[in-house]
Amino acid sequence: MAKIPVLEIFGPTIQGEGMVIGQKTMFVRTSGCDYSCAWCDSAFTWDGSQKPTLLTPKAIIEELDRLGLSRTGHVTLSGGNPLLHKALGELVTLLKKRDISLAVETQATFWQDWLLEIDDITLSPKPPSSGMTTDFDKLDSFIDKLGSANYSLKIVIFDEADYAFAKQLYVRYPNVPFYIQPGNAETEQSDERAASAYLLERYEWLIERATNCDTMIHARVLPQLHTLVWGNRQGV
Amino acid sequence: MAKIPVLEIFGPTIQGEGMVIGQKTMFVRTSGCDYSCAWCDSAFTWDGSQKPTLLTPKAIIEELDRLGLSRTGHVTLSGGNPLLHKALGELVTLLKKRDISLAVETQATFWQDWLLEIDDITLSPKPPSSGMTTDFDKLDSFIDKLGSANYSLKIVIFDEADYAFAKQLYVRYPNVPFYIQPGNAETEQSDERAASAYLLERYEWLIERATNCDTMIHARVLPQLHTLVWGNRQGV
Ligand code: SF4
Ligand code: SF4
Repeated sequence: MAKIPVLEIFGPTIQGEGMVIGQKTMFVRTSGCDYSCAWCDSAFTWDGSQKPTLLTPKAIIEELDRLGLSRTGHVTLSGGNPLLHKALGELVTLLKKRDISLAVETQATFWQDWLLEIDDITLSPKPPSSGMTTDFDKLDSFIDKLGSANYSLKIVIFDEADYAFAKQLYVRYPNVPFYIQPGNAETEQSDERAASAYLLERYEWLIERATNCDTMIHARVLPQLHTLVWGNRQGV
Repeated sequence: MAKIPVLEIFGPTIQGEGMVIGQKTMFVRTSGCDYSCAWCDSAFTWDGSQKPTLLTPKAIIEELDRLGLSRTGHVTLSGGNPLLHKALGELVTLLKKRDISLAVETQATFWQDWLLEIDDITLSPKPPSSGMTTDFDKLDSFIDKLGSANYSLKIVIFDEADYAFAKQLYVRYPNVPFYIQPGNAETEQSDERAASAYLLERYEWLIERATNCDTMIHARVLPQLHTLVWGNRQGV
């Protein structure tokens, strides 16, 4: 079995954002990302500050079992960009055999065929504030390949330029379920209540912006629940 | 046109809870309820403290238009129990003709045929802490009638007895998308930040409870976002 560089395995907890917000899930966080977003909230997956462990899919499942996979039934593959790892395909196959549902989030820059076995796919192209540039032709063909898979778009928004980027995507992919989420500019805030007060304020701003918008009619506006509850802690 | 007793029409805002959490929506709140839950957060719809206005469906749509229906595309029919009102059927038909999506929440005690035209139906049987009793046979036949409609169950949970009630429903309806939500025992708290701190604590408790539960494997655990953002204010 090929090994996968893993940074964290944790849960059971809930999915804090996006299309299956609130879902009981466990997380497998792989290391490595082809992006380096200015505000990345999991920079430890790619900036060298934390070392991954190389694990076989079987070893990952053993750890998930030990933590409580049987009472969860859902696993989220996260990163970094989990799509960098072809070897996750074996893990996906093994988990699907056990009737576990799977979610993935990716910026949609690299393709892997195992994606088509995933139950909930979140595509999160990065807005201008990230410092990254989206290749729309690549994104088009990524979305084409997804065919009838269950996927959504989720855009993090810090400011008006990000909002304009989100509108552009909303118009380009009119039939894709669409989520927007306020960006967290205070990932260093260690006081939980201060973090949640700040995030609720940003969330209120984005609701106000979106409800006054006549382009994104059917968008869903959601906060990051895990950050509201646990602040900026890792592993929850 | 038959008239409908309306207590509030407001929006655009977001749906704060349940299956379409975060969705841009407008609210039409009807008066009257066949229940009187101990902790009802909209008791003003049935306790006589506020007077409804009798409005035709056309007048309701005029008000929705004035407020911003065109930039929302989604209306939530709320109560009280909106299923008490046969006349809402005309409103539903008119809104569907304009391609507006519709959501309803009800405790599932009264049936109306217009329910089958609703896009997102939330059934919220009330747990023991409400003081109400669920007639499971009636609920069975209500759910039977829904057929292939898009519906979910949502249970408010204050304590262990409520949790046991939720588990019972989860097991009885294994194929229905299932949402649980912490109850708000402090609906009189007028300080917004104190209200959100309290609600986040209750939410954390329910996550903890649910992630340690091996019955409700696929439940989704969600807070009331509008109360987190705006506290216990009416009309948001
Ligand atoms: S794509 Fe995601 S993981 Fe990669 S740098 Fe950006 S925010 Fe971080
Ligand atoms: S069913 Fe809903 S509106 Fe009616 S009393 Fe209970 S909580 Fe209030």
